[in-house]
Amino acid sequence: MEKLFLLNDYGTGAHPRIMRALCDTNGDVTPGYGTDAYCAEAAALIKKLCAAPDSEVYFLSGGTQMNKTVICAALRPFEAVIAPEQGHIAVHETGAIENTGHKIVTCPTPDGKLTCAMIERVLDTHSPVHMVLPRMVFISNSTELGTVYTLDELKKLSRLCRERGLILYLDGARLGSALCCGEGYPGLADYAELCDMFYIGGTKNAFLFGEALVVSNKDALRDFSFAVKQQGALFAKGRLLGVQFKAAFEDGLYFETAGHANQMAQKLKKGLADLGVEFLTDSPSNQLFPVIKNDCLEKLGQLAVFSKQEKLGADKTCVRMVTSWQTDEGGIDRFLELAKEIL
Amino acid sequence: MEKLFLLNDYGTGAHPRIMRALCDTNGDVTPGYGTDAYCAEAAALIKKLCAAPDSEVYFLSGGTQMNKTVICAALRPFEAVIAPEQGHIAVHETGAIENTGHKIVTCPTPDGKLTCAMIERVLDTHSPVHMVLPRMVFISNSTELGTVYTLDELKKLSRLCRERGLILYLDGARLGSALCCGEGYPGLADYAELCDMFYIGGTKNAFLFGEALVVSNKDALRDFSFAVKQQGALFAKGRLLGVQFKAAFEDGLYFETAGHANQMAQKLKKGLADLGVEFLTDSPSNQLFPVIKNDCLEKLGQLAVFSKQEKLGADKTCVRMVTSWQTDEGGIDRFLELAKEIL
Amino acid sequence: MEKLFLLNDYGTGAHPRIMRALCDTNGDVTPGYGTDAYCAEAAALIKKLCAAPDSEVYFLSGGTQMNKTVICAALRPFEAVIAPEQGHIAVHETGAIENTGHKIVTCPTPDGKLTCAMIERVLDTHSPVHMVLPRMVFISNSTELGTVYTLDELKKLSRLCRERGLILYLDGARLGSALCCGEGYPGLADYAELCDMFYIGGTKNAFLFGEALVVSNKDALRDFSFAVKQQGALFAKGRLLGVQFKAAFEDGLYFETAGHANQMAQKLKKGLADLGVEFLTDSPSNQLFPVIKNDCLEKLGQLAVFSKQEKLGADKTCVRMVTSWQTDEGGIDRFLELAKEIL
Amino acid sequence: MEKLFLLNDYGTGAHPRIMRALCDTNGDVTPGYGTDAYCAEAAALIKKLCAAPDSEVYFLSGGTQMNKTVICAALRPFEAVIAPEQGHIAVHETGAIENTGHKIVTCPTPDGKLTCAMIERVLDTHSPVHMVLPRMVFISNSTELGTVYTLDELKKLSRLCRERGLILYLDGARLGSALCCGEGYPGLADYAELCDMFYIGGTKNAFLFGEALVVSNKDALRDFSFAVKQQGALFAKGRLLGVQFKAAFEDGLYFETAGHANQMAQKLKKGLADLGVEFLTDSPSNQLFPVIKNDCLEKLGQLAVFSKQEKLGADKTCVRMVTSWQTDEGGIDRFLELAKEIL
Repeated sequence: MEKLFLLNDYGTGAHPRIMRALCDTNGDVTPGYGTDAYCAEAAALIKKLCAAPDSEVYFLSGGTQMNKTVICAALRPFEAVIAPEQGHIAVHETGAIENTGHKIVTCPTPDGKLTCAMIERVLDTHSPVHMVLPRMVFISNSTELGTVYTLDELKKLSRLCRERGLILYLDGARLGSALCCGEGYPGLADYAELCDMFYIGGTKNAFLFGEALVVSNKDALRDFSFAVKQQGALFAKGRLLGVQFKAAFEDGLYFETAGHANQMAQKLKKGLADLGVEFLTDSPSNQLFPVIKNDCLEKLGQLAVFSKQEKLGADKTCVRMVTSWQTDEGGIDRFLELAKEIL
Repeated sequence: MEKLFLLNDYGTGAHPRIMRALCDTNGDVTPGYGTDAYCAEAAALIKKLCAAPDSEVYFLSGGTQMNKTVICAALRPFEAVIAPEQGHIAVHETGAIENTGHKIVTCPTPDGKLTCAMIERVLDTHSPVHMVLPRMVFISNSTELGTVYTLDELKKLSRLCRERGLILYLDGARLGSALCCGEGYPGLADYAELCDMFYIGGTKNAFLFGEALVVSNKDALRDFSFAVKQQGALFAKGRLLGVQFKAAFEDGLYFETAGHANQMAQKLKKGLADLGVEFLTDSPSNQLFPVIKNDCLEKLGQLAVFSKQEKLGADKTCVRMVTSWQTDEGGIDRFLELAKEIL
Repeated sequence: MEKLFLLNDYGTGAHPRIMRALCDTNGDVTPGYGTDAYCAEAAALIKKLCAAPDSEVYFLSGGTQMNKTVICAALRPFEAVIAPEQGHIAVHETGAIENTGHKIVTCPTPDGKLTCAMIERVLDTHSPVHMVLPRMVFISNSTELGTVYTLDELKKLSRLCRERGLILYLDGARLGSALCCGEGYPGLADYAELCDMFYIGGTKNAFLFGEALVVSNKDALRDFSFAVKQQGALFAKGRLLGVQFKAAFEDGLYFETAGHANQMAQKLKKGLADLGVEFLTDSPSNQLFPVIKNDCLEKLGQLAVFSKQEKLGADKTCVRMVTSWQTDEGGIDRFLELAKEIL
Repeated sequence: MEKLFLLNDYGTGAHPRIMRALCDTNGDVTPGYGTDAYCAEAAALIKKLCAAPDSEVYFLSGGTQMNKTVICAALRPFEAVIAPEQGHIAVHETGAIENTGHKIVTCPTPDGKLTCAMIERVLDTHSPVHMVLPRMVFISNSTELGTVYTLDELKKLSRLCRERGLILYLDGARLGSALCCGEGYPGLADYAELCDMFYIGGTKNAFLFGEALVVSNKDALRDFSFAVKQQGALFAKGRLLGVQFKAAFEDGLYFETAGHANQMAQKLKKGLADLGVEFLTDSPSNQLFPVIKNDCLEKLGQLAVFSKQEKLGADKTCVRMVTSWQTDEGGIDRFLELAKEIL
């Protein structure tokens, strides 16, 4: 029996409808560097879905690239970003943000989410001149721990940022998953209204690659295309990004693929919980962090591919299980059936 | 009649055999970030063609990204790159190299090529401590003006660099074209032997995207993968690069596409020369720089799409005409036939 | 009555013997940028005291400048510094290190000192490529909390760093104080032997300004003068640094001034302890961190000038009291006498 | 006979009145980092002399430090500085500006001065996105070739910069000399009115060290103190800068010392011209660039210390001769008398 693939959400190529769009347009002659009609159409679709006709949309090819390009374009040299300690920029981007010259001020948080109180504590403890000037708040939705900011939480953060002169930037590497959590969670138009800028991730939601930045606060990112080129992030055949985003948003594919991943994760979550498994965080998204007894790890690893997140005490380990648009419902069923014997 | 497309060599998607390889492998589950088997196979193929089994191969997605990642990883903060004044890094990368902290010392050159004398002049005029320390030589093949370093020229540059402790880095955004110029020009094994590192460009030779760095002097780029990630250049679905390079090199496609582009350019060059047209440089590659009387520009522009390079005096303009793997021989014939009436 | 000045150790000008040396040499004509005879003599004195004839000595004018110049010259872009969370570079240099492109990985520590276990934990949790590569350990002696690494502690750190390929860099903004703590603490020759590089601070020990870097591991800082100039840290009238260091080290002045500061601090410490005051850390140096009841703060503030460090619970505050070469013993006596009434 | 010292204007310490002010205030207890009363008084004096009550004044310790701190604080990452090819930032600062991430676009100019036409040419040839965005104009007065912008020239540059949205920044390492050239040259109030920011150099005009930045366009350098600290340029004993600038400006000393240097240079210039010597540039300032026959160089070098600037053809060499506040009129007389025999 093949193992159930729960290692990540970028292990294969693209959804067939995305591949078909790329093949169908492969021979078209277009201007380079994202100035083509596909990019224009995709941007228009996104602005419409965001109810943000005055926003600007930029297409880049990866998340680290996006984060560093946005942050270094928005900040002056002595300005810093506030982020949760598990934030992708703080841990898993090989110091990309610091490499552009900016300090990240991290906040301890149990579930990967920032709260207003955490941000205020940073502001209160940063006296001028000898310490960096906090100027941007970085959050991810869904977060690095699978949790998802609710609409109410996002509104509070947004209000605080505006009161305190902070730029609110949201990393949407897994925005698809956050958009498909059901009621009480923000929609595209909420992100466009409440954030200064955020991005819509494609790589982890059935694209070959591609992330779309939506900028509501255009003053904060004037002349952004220069920054994109300077950071080596301006794709020569930019059309590839436009074609993929057009395919994903012209008929709702983006929500289909992300919705499926979430459903599979929630089925897996319920199944594991029914077997008495506890979780590091309460995730409504496509990433789960079940806590497994060390005794069971090896056997469970024969049923599915997943990664270890961290050891918890002497006996248990938190693991990460990720679903995607390709996760097969039958596979989840079989996995749960067999896991019953182990856990 | 459709205009002949001579604007650039990246205006369409990929060669059908490349697209097919991408479609055929689209559903495979692979590890991320270039640690998959396709990348390993492609790297092995390239090392073999370079006769450089001990070299290292890295896949990135674009030229500016490659140049900045290599240069900032190889140099200490106060070290500088020597480049021709038309060098891509010096002109058309929005200050990407300076943005990583390094000065580019440019040399005036009529044909886009550096000579040993130019490099020695830079070394002679750079006194220590108050001036930057020249440490790397940047050249492109083919160059930004369509010219191509011969094997003999490359040997001389290589010898000088080794004598003077300079790193020789060659930008191969159009290496395909440089490899298909016939006798007297370097082959892949020559580049691997004579350069400390060079890259093989795919974007401008029938790929969707992709550039392969070959590093012979591994000491100069230790731990390079960290730099790739930090610069936002580590593709999540790195397999896409491996698949394309494997398709291009497993049966000679890379040379077919580049060879065709060169043949079309040389046919165009001969045809224009027969009509009395002169050229800014004597190019054996897929980029031509014909000098056109201003009177004829508009009419010529109705036959073909090309770009203006620079005004020459009051009456003439140098234009840039670029062929690609898709350039149609019949189109060249028709263009020359009609151009006869105009020039 | 004038308040006792315990705010910092850089509130006045220079020791009279330093000022006299500057006045006496003011009219001499010397080469610029530290290539003068005074700098050469001062460097020779320092190397002799360090028993390190093969080391190199560089003079800069301030601590932040020194830290950023050393760190960015020693590290490659993706390499990081490990530091205690209270480390000066991590808190009070306005992100200067990050601004040169490097992440600081901080370790929580109660007394401002790093231990081998803390460093090993960082190494163990930093997996390659997606996380920065830890490459340097930054410590201060005396630390930002007044504590001082013993010779034994420094030896252990040094051994670990050599085993694990880490550069050990010691910030000696208050090295004078650390050198005058008595037995069991490192001397200049120990620092030169155990650290890859460290600096001897003048600004906080009776100079107008000036810090001397001693580099034992010259490979780690090749061509360092270029970095000094590039960072804007090469003093035109470099002689001023040489003159001051020569005056401080030719007859032991450096140890006189630092020793006096320590004696005054220890007298103050004993006096406060006798009054029942507790301290945040057990400091043998010229910085004390007494914990004061909030009720007493205002009255105590009428006797002496000092700064608040942090609130401890609802009732108490940790304050910082710093002595210097100018602190008057009679002033300490009077302060303690009057404090008796308050505490 | 002692040789006449014409090597530079920073070869000795400070003017006796400056040293006296430093000695007189040496024991005062003041707050650190330039927040003391001396700095406040010096800033007030400078604003008054500049007739610019709303400007801001910052004190730093050196020219390279000033240039890099100002430029990186004023520009966004992809913005560039336009400078003459001989500009100090372009040649003799070890790539300090590039190290902060910014390209310098240099203009060839025979006399070290930029003209409006040169700036417009840069703007005209810089197309967006793939090339840097020119955003600041850097000039020095007096220039690196001893020439001095007239008031009329400065007005024209200022008008162009305002029309084209460029920041005008003037390096005044030798502003004293430029201020003492007589009629037709800008005064302090002109600089404050016409430049966005400029600095008043002390190091080369009889200080121990010190440069005062005057910022008229405060929007262009908001929160500048953070940048100063981050760049390692915030002097702990900032009082030293305030004391020196107060001493220099409270009774006109700054103009006395610079005026004397200019008079000595002009006397030397006339004397050499009377002997048939020609000059690279027509300098009204304290730097002269006489062209000397190679045959005479050695003998002339026995009369005075000066540096070689550049070879001119096979027979001649341009040398640099610099006067200072200490240059002795009798020394000039003797030099000219003896030079008569040689030239």
